[in-house]
Amino acid sequence: MQSDEQAIRQMVETWLAASQQGDSETLLNLMSDDVLFITPGREPFGKEAFASKDQQMKDVEIDSNIDIKEIEVLGDWAWMRSFLRLTFTKAGESTKHSGHILTILTRRPDGQWVIKRDANFVAPETQR
Amino acid sequence: MQSDEQAIRQMVETWLAASQQGDSETLLNLMSDDVLFITPGREPFGKEAFASKDQQMKDVEIDSNIDIKEIEVLGDWAWMRSFLRLTFTKAGESTKHSGHILTILTRRPDGQWVIKRDANFVAPETQR
Repeated sequence: MQSDEQAIRQMVETWLAASQQGDSETLLNLMSDDVLFITPGREPFGKEAFASKDQQMKDVEIDSNIDIKEIEVLGDWAWMRSFLRLTFTKAGESTKHSGHILTILTRRPDGQWVIKRDANFVAPETQR
Repeated sequence: MQSDEQAIRQMVETWLAASQQGDSETLLNLMSDDVLFITPGREPFGKEAFASKDQQMKDVEIDSNIDIKEIEVLGDWAWMRSFLRLTFTKAGESTKHSGHILTILTRRPDGQWVIKRDANFVAPETQR
């Protein structure tokens, strides 16, 4: 049987693959209905704002690489600290983004681990 | 008996009072030994770096106001989302900082709730 930590790592792989493939349906299925993304310079936003942001990225190619630093499982809850690098390519131009992420996850009644809160410091590398 | 949520709110009050009073000893006692603060534009840092940063703030007057948005307790773990406003005053000049915070807390064997991970978006308001 897969451990909770393995299930969470698998969920992250699925997330990144869906992100690269522009598969919004899979992404939206991997977050709780009341998810909140906390990012620099804007108010925390939920599922609907994520979907509309994702829609605007439709013509952007995304390459991603994640370094999972730690995962702590507490029953049906977990938290994870990671470092994410993203390369966005649009019309032949690439920009690199990266940053640390602190994520709270919860296990849905169907057994799927989903994102509940995501404190995401990913920002353009050139702006630092 | 005090609920866990009340104990965490009390801990936050104690933190902010200690911060305003420049009471480093109390602050350092309210974090786990392996605490990590994740903030914009620098690598996550621990207790020692916090103490040295705090030392540099010795002559700065701090006024703070926190809005605790949610607290979720999971046994000996908890997470909290908040919005913090800080006013730093030095030599008569004030600067305002504010931002969202996602905090992971843990209950120490002595019963005290302490900060384990802190994803802290507090930044100067003028830089946004």
